[in-house]
Amino acid sequence: MSATPLSPEKIHEALADLPGWTYQRNALEKVFEFATFREALGFMVRGGFDAESLNHHPEWTNIYNLVIVRLNTHSADHQVTAKDVELAHRLQKVSWVG
Amino acid sequence: MSATPLSPEKIHEALADLPGWTYQRNALEKVFEFATFREALGFMVRGGFDAESLNHHPEWTNIYNLVIVRLNTHSADHQVTAKDVELAHRLQKVSWVG
Amino acid sequence: MSATPLSPEKIHEALADLPGWTYQRNALEKVFEFATFREALGFMVRGGFDAESLNHHPEWTNIYNLVIVRLNTHSADHQVTAKDVELAHRLQKVSWVG
Amino acid sequence: MSATPLSPEKIHEALADLPGWTYQRNALEKVFEFATFREALGFMVRGGFDAESLNHHPEWTNIYNLVIVRLNTHSADHQVTAKDVELAHRLQKVSWVG
Repeated sequence: MSATPLSPEKIHEALADLPGWTYQRNALEKVFEFATFREALGFMVRGGFDAESLNHHPEWTNIYNLVIVRLNTHSADHQVTAKDVELAHRLQKVSWVG
Repeated sequence: MSATPLSPEKIHEALADLPGWTYQRNALEKVFEFATFREALGFMVRGGFDAESLNHHPEWTNIYNLVIVRLNTHSADHQVTAKDVELAHRLQKVSWVG
Repeated sequence: MSATPLSPEKIHEALADLPGWTYQRNALEKVFEFATFREALGFMVRGGFDAESLNHHPEWTNIYNLVIVRLNTHSADHQVTAKDVELAHRLQKVSWVG
Repeated sequence: MSATPLSPEKIHEALADLPGWTYQRNALEKVFEFATFREALGFMVRGGFDAESLNHHPEWTNIYNLVIVRLNTHSADHQVTAKDVELAHRLQKVSWVG
């Protein structure tokens, strides 16, 4: 997968398939809300496996039952690339994501 | 919650509300099957919080996408008690358990 | 444990026993650096148990091998209380924290 | 890495570098003992990443502060192969393993 930054058009096209994700501050962002802290941490473990298998990692913040995910690509000068879109799709597939 | 062993009648009553659980080898048992290893481990983390909060812990084995859970109570001579029934109910409530 | 905000003097006293922690932006903060993403996530699981058992939760951000922890107390108007000092001590005791 | 079963000689050679591991029941086995349930589960998450990255998974049982690991290779008729030796080495490198 290329680390070339995606054009704004490509990013908006990608967001059409990614419910709850937005493009802001040069990143794909989503606030995941879970029932509990425990489910939030379970999500980070589960999603962490996706990140490792893609060798592409999020910046993510946990505050109690929330996990705020930001995705962009360090090696592409912190722009959004196809890798970020791929990781966003993987996180959407975690079965306890709404 | 008492650490008194439950009678066989009480155990069978409890199993009626616990889909997939059986009583064997002096324990409540269930084989949880997940789509992937990753979801299986996510379940162990998520369920581990339940165990800690009840201060009552399973004997559980992970083999790839499976988690085989056995519950009985050390302090009740490894018999099934109300604590085991409670932990089984908590594990059933993990949102990515079928 | 009280949810009364600690005085600046008490906070600085507490920091003397908490290597690497600072007081800024109304919070106790520390950047934990691990060898890998995997150890960072392992720390979040391990430390998450401490948070649950104290019923007091961090705001923490994971970026690859880093975990940036911020602690203050929601119910004390987001000031630092004895609960934050206690959680900081627990996180220091995680065995793979330098 | 080959999925050819290792000879008993090769297995015993491998064990020389793997403190605490034994060969029994057709598998490399080790009982990992941690201070707490929490550290045991942290180990399973941390080691789970190793398993995923090798695409080779343990059979492992958690009982409170213990994790009993058994390694052999399904595709080699449940014999010990080089993959098992590799995973054992990775688990030894987890920083909170004694």
